[in-house]
Amino acid sequence: MTLSVTQWGCSLIPSPPMTQRVFYFGRGAAEGDPARRDLLGGKGAGLAEMTQLGLPVPAGLTISTEGCFAFLQHGELPIDLKAEVEKSLSRVEAASGSTFGDAANPLLVSVRSGARASMPGMMDTILNLGLTSQTVEGLAKRSKNRRFALDAYRRLIHMYGTVALSVGKAQFEHALDEMRVKVAHARNLDVGRLNSEELKRKVPDSEIGEAELEQLVSLYKAIVLQTTGQPFPDDAREQLWGAITAVFRSWNNPRAIYYRRMHDIPDAWGTACNVQSMVFGNLGENSATGVAFTRNPSTGEQALYGEWLPNAQGEDVVAGIRTPMPITALASLDAPETSLERKMPQAFAQLVKLADQLELHFRDMQDLEFTIQDGQLYMLQCRAAKRTSAAAVRIAVEFAKEGRLSKEEAVLRVDPHSLDQLLHPTLDPTATKKTLAKGLPASPGAASGQIVFTADEAEKKAGQGIAVVLVRIETSPEDIHGMKAARGILTARGGMTSHAAVVARGMGKPCVAGTSAISIDYAHEQMAVTLYADDGMPFDTITLKKGDLITLDGGAGMVYQGAIPTVPAALSAEFAELMEWADGARTMKVRANADTPLDARTARAFGAEGIGLCRTEHMFFDERRIAAMREMILAETVEQRETALVKLLPHQRNDFIGIFHEMRGLPVTIRLLDPPLHEFLPTTAKQVDDLAKTMGVSPARLGQRTKELHEFNPMLGHRGCRLAITYPEIYAMQIRAILEAAFSVARDGKGGVFPEIMIPLALSRGELDKMRVIVSRVVKDLNASDESVQFTFGTMIELPRAAIVADELAESAEFFSFGTNDLTQTTMGLSRDDAGKFLGAYVESGILPKDPFVSIDVAGVGALVSMAIERGRKTRPQLKLGICGEHGGDPASITFFQDVGLDYVSCSPFRVPIARLAAAQAALVQRGKKVNSSTV
Amino acid sequence: MTLSVTQWGCSLIPSPPMTQRVFYFGRGAAEGDPARRDLLGGKGAGLAEMTQLGLPVPAGLTISTEGCFAFLQHGELPIDLKAEVEKSLSRVEAASGSTFGDAANPLLVSVRSGARASMPGMMDTILNLGLTSQTVEGLAKRSKNRRFALDAYRRLIHMYGTVALSVGKAQFEHALDEMRVKVAHARNLDVGRLNSEELKRKVPDSEIGEAELEQLVSLYKAIVLQTTGQPFPDDAREQLWGAITAVFRSWNNPRAIYYRRMHDIPDAWGTACNVQSMVFGNLGENSATGVAFTRNPSTGEQALYGEWLPNAQGEDVVAGIRTPMPITALASLDAPETSLERKMPQAFAQLVKLADQLELHFRDMQDLEFTIQDGQLYMLQCRAAKRTSAAAVRIAVEFAKEGRLSKEEAVLRVDPHSLDQLLHPTLDPTATKKTLAKGLPASPGAASGQIVFTADEAEKKAGQGIAVVLVRIETSPEDIHGMKAARGILTARGGMTSHAAVVARGMGKPCVAGTSAISIDYAHEQMAVTLYADDGMPFDTITLKKGDLITLDGGAGMVYQGAIPTVPAALSAEFAELMEWADGARTMKVRANADTPLDARTARAFGAEGIGLCRTEHMFFDERRIAAMREMILAETVEQRETALVKLLPHQRNDFIGIFHEMRGLPVTIRLLDPPLHEFLPTTAKQVDDLAKTMGVSPARLGQRTKELHEFNPMLGHRGCRLAITYPEIYAMQIRAILEAAFSVARDGKGGVFPEIMIPLALSRGELDKMRVIVSRVVKDLNASDESVQFTFGTMIELPRAAIVADELAESAEFFSFGTNDLTQTTMGLSRDDAGKFLGAYVESGILPKDPFVSIDVAGVGALVSMAIERGRKTRPQLKLGICGEHGGDPASITFFQDVGLDYVSCSPFRVPIARLAAAQAALVQRGKKVNSSTV
Repeated sequence: MTLSVTQWGCSLIPSPPMTQRVFYFGRGAAEGDPARRDLLGGKGAGLAEMTQLGLPVPAGLTISTEGCFAFLQHGELPIDLKAEVEKSLSRVEAASGSTFGDAANPLLVSVRSGARASMPGMMDTILNLGLTSQTVEGLAKRSKNRRFALDAYRRLIHMYGTVALSVGKAQFEHALDEMRVKVAHARNLDVGRLNSEELKRKVPDSEIGEAELEQLVSLYKAIVLQTTGQPFPDDAREQLWGAITAVFRSWNNPRAIYYRRMHDIPDAWGTACNVQSMVFGNLGENSATGVAFTRNPSTGEQALYGEWLPNAQGEDVVAGIRTPMPITALASLDAPETSLERKMPQAFAQLVKLADQLELHFRDMQDLEFTIQDGQLYMLQCRAAKRTSAAAVRIAVEFAKEGRLSKEEAVLRVDPHSLDQLLHPTLDPTATKKTLAKGLPASPGAASGQIVFTADEAEKKAGQGIAVVLVRIETSPEDIHGMKAARGILTARGGMTSHAAVVARGMGKPCVAGTSAISIDYAHEQMAVTLYADDGMPFDTITLKKGDLITLDGGAGMVYQGAIPTVPAALSAEFAELMEWADGARTMKVRANADTPLDARTARAFGAEGIGLCRTEHMFFDERRIAAMREMILAETVEQRETALVKLLPHQRNDFIGIFHEMRGLPVTIRLLDPPLHEFLPTTAKQVDDLAKTMGVSPARLGQRTKELHEFNPMLGHRGCRLAITYPEIYAMQIRAILEAAFSVARDGKGGVFPEIMIPLALSRGELDKMRVIVSRVVKDLNASDESVQFTFGTMIELPRAAIVADELAESAEFFSFGTNDLTQTTMGLSRDDAGKFLGAYVESGILPKDPFVSIDVAGVGALVSMAIERGRKTRPQLKLGICGEHGGDPASITFFQDVGLDYVSCSPFRVPIARLAAAQAALVQRGKKVNSSTV
Repeated sequence: MTLSVTQWGCSLIPSPPMTQRVFYFGRGAAEGDPARRDLLGGKGAGLAEMTQLGLPVPAGLTISTEGCFAFLQHGELPIDLKAEVEKSLSRVEAASGSTFGDAANPLLVSVRSGARASMPGMMDTILNLGLTSQTVEGLAKRSKNRRFALDAYRRLIHMYGTVALSVGKAQFEHALDEMRVKVAHARNLDVGRLNSEELKRKVPDSEIGEAELEQLVSLYKAIVLQTTGQPFPDDAREQLWGAITAVFRSWNNPRAIYYRRMHDIPDAWGTACNVQSMVFGNLGENSATGVAFTRNPSTGEQALYGEWLPNAQGEDVVAGIRTPMPITALASLDAPETSLERKMPQAFAQLVKLADQLELHFRDMQDLEFTIQDGQLYMLQCRAAKRTSAAAVRIAVEFAKEGRLSKEEAVLRVDPHSLDQLLHPTLDPTATKKTLAKGLPASPGAASGQIVFTADEAEKKAGQGIAVVLVRIETSPEDIHGMKAARGILTARGGMTSHAAVVARGMGKPCVAGTSAISIDYAHEQMAVTLYADDGMPFDTITLKKGDLITLDGGAGMVYQGAIPTVPAALSAEFAELMEWADGARTMKVRANADTPLDARTARAFGAEGIGLCRTEHMFFDERRIAAMREMILAETVEQRETALVKLLPHQRNDFIGIFHEMRGLPVTIRLLDPPLHEFLPTTAKQVDDLAKTMGVSPARLGQRTKELHEFNPMLGHRGCRLAITYPEIYAMQIRAILEAAFSVARDGKGGVFPEIMIPLALSRGELDKMRVIVSRVVKDLNASDESVQFTFGTMIELPRAAIVADELAESAEFFSFGTNDLTQTTMGLSRDDAGKFLGAYVESGILPKDPFVSIDVAGVGALVSMAIERGRKTRPQLKLGICGEHGGDPASITFFQDVGLDYVSCSPFRVPIARLAAAQAALVQRGKKVNSSTV
């Protein structure tokens, strides 16, 4: 390569294809294909479709996302694009019988963004375009209402000024407030100390007369001139191009970018832009505006649901000054006479009819915007309505029962992620909240409690019946008892797969992790919380002490001050029905990760079809056991170690007995000891002293041994089956405990005990063969001749090498379970405990599409999973394949696992229903039933 | 799987094929195929080949390794195998004209082990088999020498007793000593306080008469009866089966197992067993025994070289009581009349003729054992002779010049590993040594010096002209100056690719790493060394203090007490010639890893054809730079960071200018900053204070920031190009320094500056694209329009994911360099800093064939390398491919790299000649020229 600017200085940008980029709609005909949401955006597609259905839609045009690309590429609207707009605009003029910019009979238009996915409020909208000093008078004459025309003009200057010309909205609002004060004074109202909101209520817009509006228009124009150095454009076309430019530019405004990151919307989609003839809901008492849902979006109940305002524009409904009224008489129990149903029965009847028509047509609940101008109903928007999880489930099931959807389609309609809401308590949506901080949504559910900073304190207070939230910089296995006792867990560090997150999800407790805004001071039992404004800048710090109340929303990753009431989880009959349909569609089994009999019972209640991961190390953190565990680890001879193991054996055996009982009839995969031994070591001086006494060695010697166990990269250290290569007696004890427990449970002759012994961190067949030898020895030792217990022997695939030599591993292993957490760490060279510092930057800059610890990295980690499956099955066609990493509960990952042909996924008990639904969807998609893209 | 003993209790062993397992040789005919060393073992193959060549070889038989397997499988000699032996034995009887076990004319035989690879002294040998209370008298009569016969009988009981019957040899030796004392007393010699050795010298075996030997035989038999409870077998066949059993059993004695581990000899090879008619060098003054090399094994000089003893058996030469004499008159300058040449000119002439015949036949220098019985020469062994590296080079080159080998064959003859000896000083082979400990042979060469425990102390003492050895628990980048100053480095922890090992190899300094027997106490400036006996048991601990002298042999991993003289490295003309031939045969380039102009110069002197890895971080450890580096790392704002970077820029630029000058005309691959930032952090309070002052922040704040940089698994943390994703200004500075330096050197218009900018730790194309943007910006910024400098942009492949998505990476990268150290760590999930605790067990138990950090793991890591090559070249056929991990200097790995088609390997400067030779061999082997398996 030669060092020259031409080669390195810029990149080539491909020319856009010269296809149609502007699409007219109006009078029953629409050029755009409603199926092309990628081109028309959601709003444009909805308008086109409603038009084609013959609904009353004001005429307009949609500039496609390709127009957006053309703009973004050139930094301005290309001339040929403008020409296309002009061409369609003349058809709009014809349809509306008015002319854009015409002094006598002016056409007014709105300009609105509309991306493929709904991004409410993120981008810009301008109404009443086309009003100038001349056309305003034309509008006044035509509407016979000069006050109305001037009010529209004032609104235009305000909106256009702020959106297209970057004038601060405070200036306009200040001028309006001044005018209200003036009006108040004229009426002898005392408004001396009222703030803007109070003033607005005292002197509503309707009180501002024609003369005042005329003054306001002048004032607004002066503000524009003063701020921008240019007069407010008095040319309709100049306004139009400016508004379209502003809409396209708003695709890349910071809040839109932020929203896209949050909702996984690709930057490359771009937005469409809709230019539509204005209709006015504020032309008088025979005009109105409103929004409607075809069903109740909270409960899913089948009834038109919505709000309206007479004599108002759409923005008035949002602004919250006038309280909108229910559409139906039934919903407005207190004052049925204020309902649209009673006030404008004809328009209402038409709305009901259209709503039903649209729901039938789209086969989904719709969210509608409408305006009534002089008694005439116009439809301005329709789209699939957002709804609560409970509503989503009910609607899907009822649609199926009404014959509008097949059961399979109903299963495909519910976002598996949303089930989290149903399975955990949630915050009371009506409560007011004071946000403290935002962290990672590590484990869903909501909980309030007093802050405690230690696990012991959590246990103590919980014992006294006090609800507590355990707050830690990060949690460690030693905190388990405190996590059990707490209602929720909050950590300052750690990601979605940190210890706190994994354990909390397992327990079904809310957890907010990696909350970098909090800084914990254990010594003083307090934490400082940096408060951030919406723009991401810190503006204050507050200190919370032990005993202060906080509330966590683990599903959203939010931390609130004080105790906020919660709503308990409640599973509906529709939920049970939907899950049954899902189970019918599913081909992969769903198991749960469970370490205790209690977890196992929970998992089974949620529909788990076995245990895919029983971590034996968690059993050792119990206070009565950890001493023996430490003794085992710090042993310097085989004899010392075996003495300690003898103490641990009965505990392990009892754990397994409990689990086998709970899971009778279902398989239980037990992973032998996995983590680096030093995770179990004593940390306090007292623990060291106690242990030294038990072991009969000096505390100094014990300290030395502890030091020796230190590792630079414990994730890549002496763990997994490496422990058993050097200390085979550890696994021998565990295998003995498993088999003795299995026999004990199977003694009643009822069968149904299916242990699966799983070896962690294998990298070669040699390891597995050595482990098999240990199994053989234990079997021989137990002198087990009866055949009442069937067990299998398998391995985790969690190292790239294991995936590569899977053909060899399958010679020894009867099953594989993918440990995709560790496989992600090694394949990508990412420590999940440390990646927090830079993974955000990777996702934000688009280098990685998603956090690979949340959703499997298909291109990298996924390729190794595929390779291992192919090679493993080549050696052993009946090889059983599952996954027990965190990805087992992630719908996107489950789709991948379905595609590559796993036999089962395993996830934490509370995610089992999510996995069941996701697995059903994956299976249905695989069978060629496409997800209706408008509903997901 | 059902839990039953049958399935898990034992593994099936395949039945052996029923092929010939015993091979007769004698009187010019041998049944065995000499090429089947796998069956006959080295000794058996040599005997068969010499027999076929018509050389005088006593008749015998070889039981093949399949016989060994049969024995090991059944735990005893199968009857059919015995029958095969009997059959061949009768042919031996016919050839020798005597009968095994015959009282009048007994055949005596030796039984010797002989594995495929030479394992000198590791397994057992028994001579004079067939002597019983009856046959001894037959031998006495036949030899007309009853004393000789009784002596042979005594030796048999001693050897058979210890080897086959497990009687302690001390008992026999004690009885013999008593007899010597008796003889001495009989001759009035005062031997009151002499030890065994002195006694032996005073009363040699020859002084022990027939009567005493008769007594000894009785005494020895009594010892056997008393110890084993069984009489000494008085049946020739019983002796034979016992001896064969002992030989086969010795394959699995601990020292043989240990030897195999050390020399990479597979356990599965087994040993053959040779049963051969005895010839006697101790039948009188016309008999003799000796060993000979066809050339001088130390220097390679072309002259028969060896030693002999008249009237002696082979074991007497080894025992060291009588001093053997040179074979040739020339070699025995002091007393040419003692040479075999003068004493037995006829036998000598025959030996010279046979030696030359064998050398010509085998086309390699031979190591011969011979016996002369009554003037008749017999050949007992021939094999490729062990030799020093210098001799190996000279012999290979001279053989080629003599036309006995082609140049290519000569290149294939020298073990690349052995060149290490030639490139570094070695210990004086004649010096006596006291072993302290054995560690890993981390960097070759020998050095003596005073112990120092800190880098500062090393620098100080070295400044005073004192030779020092730096002893550390482990080294860190902060110790570099001390490592530079020291003659050698000794560490208690860390593996072959630990910091100490890598840096020492780069410096060409001896290093012994991971020496677990030493325990360092920095506080008291001393270390405790646990001394181990040959059987691996600790028997003592000694303490060495600062200033005590030690000597390291880095090539062997040995630590010795005191200062042992060393022999400097000296490269011969033959070495230069061989390397020239190697370069002619080679297809891969060989580059060096070099971080400084001095390293670059050394590398070029050793024949490096470019720099494959210039680590930019090492440049920052210099005392004058580390402060600015720390300032950069601890910066909390972009501005602070850029201030620090401005300070670093001129240093980096100057480094690169120096390197580009040294490497003019050759490519220089520069890796941008790679390690986790916290490696550079201040460690002492003073360093923190100084830095805080420079940066104008509080030491507490700095301490806090340091803590924030802590990582749980730094190997998988915030390092490599991840640093530049979050702090692009760091790489921008480095790229600027590279390009400015390149222009500066190229300004003279002579060209020859070829920087290759290399991005570390990439896992996705997105990262590379972002890095290219930084390059573009710098190029634009430099406003570089001239084309005098050509640079390329590429990436390391050191994560499994990078190998998997190599097709995408190659869209952005013009070259790949495999970082196989990190790739091994991530692919296998092994931290090289922590694996020391268990990797030994993995290699010893055969789970891994070799330390994967020394020799590339072909099945796992190698598979990813192949995948990356295939995918990368698919995207970019001209993609340049190299490797810069530690494997770049390992011959076995180089063979793999040749096979997969890399363009170059890069290794530390001192390994460049090794890599050149290994690459040549790999290329030759690839071209189908097979390595003569007898010579490697």
